[in-house]
Amino acid sequence: MKRAVILLSGGLDSATVLAIAKSEGYDCYTISFDYGQRHRAELKASAKLAQSMGAIEHKVINIDLTAIGGSALTDNSIDVPEQHEEGIPITYVPARNTVFMSIALGWAEVLKAEAIFVGVNAVDYSGYPDCRPEYIAAFEKMANLATKTGVEGSKLSIETPLIDLTKKAIIKKGIELGVDYGQTISCYKADEYGRACGQCDSCRFRKQGFEQANIDDPTLYQT
Amino acid sequence: MKRAVILLSGGLDSATVLAIAKSEGYDCYTISFDYGQRHRAELKASAKLAQSMGAIEHKVINIDLTAIGGSALTDNSIDVPEQHEEGIPITYVPARNTVFMSIALGWAEVLKAEAIFVGVNAVDYSGYPDCRPEYIAAFEKMANLATKTGVEGSKLSIETPLIDLTKKAIIKKGIELGVDYGQTISCYKADEYGRACGQCDSCRFRKQGFEQANIDDPTLYQT
Repeated sequence: MKRAVILLSGGLDSATVLAIAKSEGYDCYTISFDYGQRHRAELKASAKLAQSMGAIEHKVINIDLTAIGGSALTDNSIDVPEQHEEGIPITYVPARNTVFMSIALGWAEVLKAEAIFVGVNAVDYSGYPDCRPEYIAAFEKMANLATKTGVEGSKLSIETPLIDLTKKAIIKKGIELGVDYGQTISCYKADEYGRACGQCDSCRFRKQGFEQANIDDPTLYQT
Repeated sequence: MKRAVILLSGGLDSATVLAIAKSEGYDCYTISFDYGQRHRAELKASAKLAQSMGAIEHKVINIDLTAIGGSALTDNSIDVPEQHEEGIPITYVPARNTVFMSIALGWAEVLKAEAIFVGVNAVDYSGYPDCRPEYIAAFEKMANLATKTGVEGSKLSIETPLIDLTKKAIIKKGIELGVDYGQTISCYKADEYGRACGQCDSCRFRKQGFEQANIDDPTLYQT
């Protein structure tokens, strides 16, 4: 049976990615990160999703990115903006995807997995540099030089099935595959009950996606 | 003043790298990792070295790699071998350098540092895949695509001043720059007093280096 490690944030995108990996016949090993993010409600969501969607194993890795800071998500003295910003926004976490995919790479090597799935998207997104196709290609190349399994000839691929899809298309795909989006949390400021603010970038992209897909939005909002 | 992040393990190589970065005029920010390694004595050594060698700031990041395992250094059920093994040895930690350099990359971005220094070596070494020049080049390329500062045109370089040096040459260089090797710990099985086993791969390379350099070995051994 072929194995894949899936980065599962508890959001809409990564839940869809998990469903896609399963539909492609992978045994799925999910990984989440407790990195000091302000929206820790997503950790509960990801554990629940992993279980309900049949992951073989779900791991939560502790890595304190508040020690580095530099983002509204990992430094409580910086507010999450309610307006969309031009350029790369303050919610960008320095090197976050690189750190997460590197740890996933270590686990993939131990599992002898063939792929790491990650829900990056370069259409309806916040302009984060580590969501772009050229970055992913460079990471994949590096990853295959980094490991013992790579040296021995096994190829690991970084799979980004959402990279070219609109949020609307992602939601349609997930609904087709039976994803329960009521279990997912996208908001950067979700409260302890998992209710979304409805204002941040992440909420806006999600809301718009459901509207455009003409599908009922199951998100719980704070107001 | 130009800034650099230095990966400081507390061993001979990384202490030498710190001295080299300083001699090249960098303000040095050192980073160590508490990753569940069995040789935790190195964490004390690195904190001491950072202070005595004038680092501007020293950070210790907690990241539990025992959750992933797959190595004699992060899984206590696997013994550290006392004989040199053919091929990539069991002390190889899956994706360790990639994880460490990724976290250093995040800090480098926050600091607007120009370089990350890492003491990898591809001569007197254990054959780890993530110590090879082609891996480092691929990491550097990926790193410059990963970050906001990279997108905005700042170039970050991964500096590996030891990569082509023998252990003998590394020690000679360090002595020239005033490194106190008595403060460094290389052993994979160092005890709580920082005393080395004298048997593991890391001890063997170190011992041989001092012999070949014709310099007194300041290492404290357990026997």
